Amino acid sequence: MARSIQSLERAAAVLRLLAGGERRLGLSDIASTLGLAKGTAHGLLRTLQQEGFVEQDAASGRYQLGAELLRLGNSYLDVHELRARALVWSDDLARASGEAVYLGVLHQQGVLVVHHVFRPDDSRQVLEIGAMQPLHSTAMGKVLAAYDPVAHSELLDGAREAFTSRTTTEAPELEATFEQTRQHGWASDTEESWEGVASVAAPIFDRRRMPVGAVGITGAVERVCEDGTIRPTLVAAVRGCARSVSRDLGAGRF
Amino acid sequence: MARSIQSLERAAAVLRLLAGGERRLGLSDIASTLGLAKGTAHGLLRTLQQEGFVEQDAASGRYQLGAELLRLGNSYLDVHELRARALVWSDDLARASGEAVYLGVLHQQGVLVVHHVFRPDDSRQVLEIGAMQPLHSTAMGKVLAAYDPVAHSELLDGAREAFTSRTTTEAPELEATFEQTRQHGWASDTEESWEGVASVAAPIFDRRRMPVGAVGITGAVERVCEDGTIRPTLVAAVRGCARSVSRDLGAGRF
Repeated sequence: MARSIQSLERAAAVLRLLAGGERRLGLSDIASTLGLAKGTAHGLLRTLQQEGFVEQDAASGRYQLGAELLRLGNSYLDVHELRARALVWSDDLARASGEAVYLGVLHQQGVLVVHHVFRPDDSRQVLEIGAMQPLHSTAMGKVLAAYDPVAHSELLDGAREAFTSRTTTEAPELEATFEQTRQHGWASDTEESWEGVASVAAPIFDRRRMPVGAVGITGAVERVCEDGTIRPTLVAAVRGCARSVSRDLGAGRF
Repeated sequence: MARSIQSLERAAAVLRLLAGGERRLGLSDIASTLGLAKGTAHGLLRTLQQEGFVEQDAASGRYQLGAELLRLGNSYLDVHELRARALVWSDDLARASGEAVYLGVLHQQGVLVVHHVFRPDDSRQVLEIGAMQPLHSTAMGKVLAAYDPVAHSELLDGAREAFTSRTTTEAPELEATFEQTRQHGWASDTEESWEGVASVAAPIFDRRRMPVGAVGITGAVERVCEDGTIRPTLVAAVRGCARSVSRDLGAGRF
């Protein structure tokens, strides 16, 4: 078994650091945060810059993430089979539901949004492809945690922030939610991540019946819910979309 | 001056290889293409996989780009000052022109699309954020090559493919186009990159009057052109947008 390469692990740590929190950091900050000698950090940054993974602001000398990451991230999407199969179905779901549609996969301790269809109205919306959502408080996250053992253990191991007064953070309560999710075949989030926002999601399976992602809609609680629960027509639309994508991925009907 | 780090350069070469052409490659292909020993390539791939930059397909054993690149690419966009300043103006441009709007910056030998507003109709459109456009045949590329000396030399050094019968590939003709672009303050592409598609773009300047990007519209030649030339109202709308973004970036009026 090949050993992992220290300079590569350190370079990845530099990129993760620049992706979170401050996002524009000086050499000293980077070196001290990662516990590296300044010369070591400088060597990493210089090579990362030369390869386009990092850019240095001419005025301040601070470092930030580089354009090559955007190009590579786009290439990642280009070969994403789940995403390719889901493009048409998620468009249809946005049209049928009148809400924004998200497609997510497990990545690290959260849900990585790999596709996002804007709500079909004229409002200004921010594209969230590449953004992360928490596992414990979003509909997509609960679906992944309920069906995917890896997601489940990531969730139990990680910190669970209470984003609103309705967020569930305790393991036993979450386990009950996951059990319910498996029984019903879908999960919801009613103002557990953002005040005023509700979401519904269902799991997508591949030809080996493995849960490979989740698809769902997100919108104003006033539109998505009725008498405190998700509108059944929206649940049906989301589950129908998830079934169609799963069939396209080769999952059997039975 | 710190030396660049060989394992990091090699890892970047692996990612570039996976981003182009085949996109799913076996260990032997990667090793032989990059001229590395198999053990060296395996060590790189193992660490890249551990950090989420590469994923291995369970069935075929082949490698492809990983999800962490999408997350980092999204973070890159989050701190992109030009993009942040251009969001509202490019929305307005899409509405005023009725066409798709692109915002691009120089990256390597091309234009990297950092923002894309869909044409405001109900048609299905593919998001192109993170995609690359050629410098010699697109309106944004010509604008960058005309105003940015680095883009200009990248273009002259690189290969120039004839995408259609209307693509200009010879340096003297291109130089004349760039001269014209600087005189007029904008560039166009009439079926030089894609049959049936025309585009118009104008340069964006920062507070130091440096060209930092280009903004433009792209659409069916039947809509964008009239009697063989770009419709003047569209040119005016694109130039107005570029001026507004430049002003927002601190470029003086004179």
